[in-house]
Amino acid sequence: MLIVMDHNATPEQIEVVNQRVRDLGFTPQPIPGGHRVAIGVLGNQGYVDEGPFRGLPGIRDFVHVTKPFKLVSRDFHPEDTVVRVGGVPVGWNEEPVVIAGPCAVESADQVLAAARAVKAAGAHLLRGGAFKPRTGPHSFQGLGFEGLEILAEAAREVGLPVVTEVMRIDQLDRVARVADCLQVGARNMQNFDLLKETGRVGKPVLLKRGMSATLDEFLAAAEYVLLEGNRQVILCERGIRTFERALRNTLDLAVVPYLRGATHLPLIVDPSHALGRRDLVPPVARAAMVVGAAGVMVEVHPDPASALCDGPQSLDPAGFRALMADLRSFRPGA
Amino acid sequence: MLIVMDHNATPEQIEVVNQRVRDLGFTPQPIPGGHRVAIGVLGNQGYVDEGPFRGLPGIRDFVHVTKPFKLVSRDFHPEDTVVRVGGVPVGWNEEPVVIAGPCAVESADQVLAAARAVKAAGAHLLRGGAFKPRTGPHSFQGLGFEGLEILAEAAREVGLPVVTEVMRIDQLDRVARVADCLQVGARNMQNFDLLKETGRVGKPVLLKRGMSATLDEFLAAAEYVLLEGNRQVILCERGIRTFERALRNTLDLAVVPYLRGATHLPLIVDPSHALGRRDLVPPVARAAMVVGAAGVMVEVHPDPASALCDGPQSLDPAGFRALMADLRSFRPGA
Amino acid sequence: MLIVMDHNATPEQIEVVNQRVRDLGFTPQPIPGGHRVAIGVLGNQGYVDEGPFRGLPGIRDFVHVTKPFKLVSRDFHPEDTVVRVGGVPVGWNEEPVVIAGPCAVESADQVLAAARAVKAAGAHLLRGGAFKPRTGPHSFQGLGFEGLEILAEAAREVGLPVVTEVMRIDQLDRVARVADCLQVGARNMQNFDLLKETGRVGKPVLLKRGMSATLDEFLAAAEYVLLEGNRQVILCERGIRTFERALRNTLDLAVVPYLRGATHLPLIVDPSHALGRRDLVPPVARAAMVVGAAGVMVEVHPDPASALCDGPQSLDPAGFRALMADLRSFRPGA
Amino acid sequence: MLIVMDHNATPEQIEVVNQRVRDLGFTPQPIPGGHRVAIGVLGNQGYVDEGPFRGLPGIRDFVHVTKPFKLVSRDFHPEDTVVRVGGVPVGWNEEPVVIAGPCAVESADQVLAAARAVKAAGAHLLRGGAFKPRTGPHSFQGLGFEGLEILAEAAREVGLPVVTEVMRIDQLDRVARVADCLQVGARNMQNFDLLKETGRVGKPVLLKRGMSATLDEFLAAAEYVLLEGNRQVILCERGIRTFERALRNTLDLAVVPYLRGATHLPLIVDPSHALGRRDLVPPVARAAMVVGAAGVMVEVHPDPASALCDGPQSLDPAGFRALMADLRSFRPGA
Repeated sequence: MLIVMDHNATPEQIEVVNQRVRDLGFTPQPIPGGHRVAIGVLGNQGYVDEGPFRGLPGIRDFVHVTKPFKLVSRDFHPEDTVVRVGGVPVGWNEEPVVIAGPCAVESADQVLAAARAVKAAGAHLLRGGAFKPRTGPHSFQGLGFEGLEILAEAAREVGLPVVTEVMRIDQLDRVARVADCLQVGARNMQNFDLLKETGRVGKPVLLKRGMSATLDEFLAAAEYVLLEGNRQVILCERGIRTFERALRNTLDLAVVPYLRGATHLPLIVDPSHALGRRDLVPPVARAAMVVGAAGVMVEVHPDPASALCDGPQSLDPAGFRALMADLRSFRPGA
Repeated sequence: MLIVMDHNATPEQIEVVNQRVRDLGFTPQPIPGGHRVAIGVLGNQGYVDEGPFRGLPGIRDFVHVTKPFKLVSRDFHPEDTVVRVGGVPVGWNEEPVVIAGPCAVESADQVLAAARAVKAAGAHLLRGGAFKPRTGPHSFQGLGFEGLEILAEAAREVGLPVVTEVMRIDQLDRVARVADCLQVGARNMQNFDLLKETGRVGKPVLLKRGMSATLDEFLAAAEYVLLEGNRQVILCERGIRTFERALRNTLDLAVVPYLRGATHLPLIVDPSHALGRRDLVPPVARAAMVVGAAGVMVEVHPDPASALCDGPQSLDPAGFRALMADLRSFRPGA
Repeated sequence: MLIVMDHNATPEQIEVVNQRVRDLGFTPQPIPGGHRVAIGVLGNQGYVDEGPFRGLPGIRDFVHVTKPFKLVSRDFHPEDTVVRVGGVPVGWNEEPVVIAGPCAVESADQVLAAARAVKAAGAHLLRGGAFKPRTGPHSFQGLGFEGLEILAEAAREVGLPVVTEVMRIDQLDRVARVADCLQVGARNMQNFDLLKETGRVGKPVLLKRGMSATLDEFLAAAEYVLLEGNRQVILCERGIRTFERALRNTLDLAVVPYLRGATHLPLIVDPSHALGRRDLVPPVARAAMVVGAAGVMVEVHPDPASALCDGPQSLDPAGFRALMADLRSFRPGA
Repeated sequence: MLIVMDHNATPEQIEVVNQRVRDLGFTPQPIPGGHRVAIGVLGNQGYVDEGPFRGLPGIRDFVHVTKPFKLVSRDFHPEDTVVRVGGVPVGWNEEPVVIAGPCAVESADQVLAAARAVKAAGAHLLRGGAFKPRTGPHSFQGLGFEGLEILAEAAREVGLPVVTEVMRIDQLDRVARVADCLQVGARNMQNFDLLKETGRVGKPVLLKRGMSATLDEFLAAAEYVLLEGNRQVILCERGIRTFERALRNTLDLAVVPYLRGATHLPLIVDPSHALGRRDLVPPVARAAMVVGAAGVMVEVHPDPASALCDGPQSLDPAGFRALMADLRSFRPGA
């Protein structure tokens, strides 16, 4: 940490700060500048809290050099983490995965039709939500545990591992019996207790970026899971909220190479939720792949027009087949 | 809902949409414009989902006139709701309340000192967190249930009702035994299961606006609580996240008169979390009062420089006394 | 336009609105809903202003169906516009163009080295700024007209058409003598007089999206140019400003297919300004191409480490050669 | 500036950076931390550009301690600047000013009626736009120089100094003959040539904050004017653009005390443009005053329902009289 002093801070004020640094067991290193002095805090092994300094007179600003996470950082763990979901490897340098399926589980027929379609087209993992977080309480909230059974049955039938969302801690055991990967949704990215408890289950976790989470906060959320001894975390970018509302969210694909440098955990991209419009999903999924994502997650529904949730952004089976063919044709080196 | 058709939508496409509207039990009302036709959906009693229409050809856009909430709306419930927290009324036309206390419970001495200070200066309710949601897992996470006991003891001693945060469903019973008002924090504003379960407890709920929640989403989150039969909800504005990072959050006080028109539920303002800087809290708290807020929530610590959490934004007892005196001098009509 | 009335608007209030619609020469079309009435305004040939209605009692909201632009809209002009810059065609279905060169003109040697490098690697157009808009007045502001001469000389030497920025109206004549395409920068996207006057010059215009411009505002800005009788406009996406500051801007590539549907004007992408980091430019440029952009604009400097402006995001000649090779390998159908 | 090195930067890489610092005439000061080394750059008298360092291997980040402005900074000029507009003082510790009048000049009758109303109610300065920046080219663009004459005439008649906007450099002379204060609008905040030329005129300048300008960028824009030798600058906060679109802009009043600490230039607040809704203007204007603004700018129209521009946010004469009475009752110490 760097403590920036006021332009006209007195030597006494500077010395009080130096002493506080020493009291905490660190070493102060004054850096006189043209206009003001800054004081470096040396000897820390991690994040230094501003708290003990904040009340002191003559301080103008704090500059943090250390990040609020460590286990997820590429800096301290240079090798890629490869997450294995029911045998399917997910990693920065693995073959990109495609996770596909309906937004919500609506019926046995619907899920089975979707599962068969995505399997036939070459998807690697099946997604589907039994518990649905919805902005308003008057919208369809998912079939719950019944939906979970339907999903499990369809997955067994087609032979695909399952990714599904958990919304509350007391669901974890039952969901984990069915799921090969536990999803924590964007709205729960900073539901820290859910993160910890999900981490403890020991299954792979798919963590979606919060709507307004910075990349540092996203990584710090993943750190909660890793601290429970579980490195099997897949990050998922799904767009952020900005002033631009022409599309549902703003999807910055530069996040992909940025996070590739910042973390060993793989990142996938969810263009369906990011955009909210079916017709834009294929070109953006393609772009996600060529920019280096470890995979994409795509919503597929046997009959999008009748979907109870997110129909507008769901591909139908023919659309998904076309997407898969397109993705294969854009492989690097092809 | 209004369904806006493409400039060159065919009569057949328009008729398909009309028929779909009728299939759902509503009445279509075509509105021919200069450039295109729009189709009004008549006869609905609430929010109409776009889902059944999204796949149809020739549709360009959907316009929602109905909001995703109703119980919280001033439109349908014109009279102010007055929430009573341990006997203290909170409402748009009640005497504004001041909720004060430390960010986090750190020790019995700290909380008792804070409680005495805020009581003496005229605060109406005591706040303090036993469970602390923190961005990174390496920061202080609160004392937990031990902290809860400390808080309860201090509150009894000084005779103030208590507002404190719940972070997980399985804490609700124990927290509710101590708290007069259950706070759901900004990061959990869309933790819908927590909202529902907290609503069921039957105690007043203080719901903080999520960092990137629109006002409609904020009200829809409160609707989750009201749907459980609990109207005792206090809304709390604490700033939103924007591109401007000079201060911790961006605090739009125009939200106060806006929500006064939109909802019967009272709104208070939390300048401490919004700004992150102690020196800005007094003028902004004053502005919140004169703009019409039902109250303010302010962080007070006996020794901010040693605080384990949010010291920079905490007032010390003398600062809080000065704030209270200032607030009294700015009352309307004074 | 749709005028949404209050839940409890009186028949008299509704009639006043109807009459005002008729006074303006339009036809009111009441649409009774479950909870409230909305009034459609029929018969308009373009955007209807809210002004004449705003003061009337009983009105709750206005919903605009018509956009504030028309000439730029794909809706009214379905065929692609192909812009020709010194003979190079730029359009949604043309061969994608690469515009490359230094951020700022610094010296004859620097520009000539850059021009030779980008020409040799296969760029189609040369860029370079003689007038530089800089956040602070203490930064390098460009060489001005002297820089313009240097740029023109280098362009002639290597045989590439030139794209360069204009910042003020009284520069237009002299810049237009040299430039094949006049750039209006992001900070001037709503400098409406500059737009109009630039449009009148009759040369192709490259219009960059403003940092916080919505896509509708971006298109409305282009409409200013088209209204002057000049259809030769290239749009340029360069990222928007959001809460995320890990990278310089947030670059949403979904804008590419979105605008492809919304306008006949071609859109190119500028990853250099969007990201601010050289290492991220190649993967994002590649993604821009596969998502369907009409081209990319990339900063290249013979010695980025010594650049007076935006060195961190500039590729060196070797980096640019590698980028060009990479872009060629990712062509659709390859 | 602080140069943060990679975790595993080699001693050779560090030495290359040190040498580059020395080459630029500064002194490097390595600060070894627990995980990495940072290098302080000592001896600079102002902002140090990252450019010369960006290409060097082993560098992870740059931290700027110096701001891109100096003349506007409270740090270097502690005394308040008092701007005098036609004899009316505007400053942090002066009596707060009220600038009022119509958004746009529409006719002699309209402006005169507005001018009389605001003068009678106690406004200090008259505002009105002859040149109107509008998002779309199909909206009313102002009466131009004819409007300017109308405005001047009305101002003379009622005896109020005039504030009016300039949009292009070649208007400056004629506008300056009429105006007591030249306004540069939000969309032109980074039209740097307009800033410079306006600064040179020698009249007071009212500079509105850009829709997505950070506070540092806002101050840097003002610095352009001061560098021309003109300290007579009034800053104007008018809300920023965020994800929240329930109101036109997001108006953070905490900016007022923040800027009071950061600059000697006075700041006023424009609630009319910030909110876009007449009914919210009075409470927010009141809040702006009690939070310490040097004044407010309010739109007043004799008949808002017929206004050609921004009618919805304009007060009528009676509303403005009520606002003025209200503002007087809320004075500190009252």
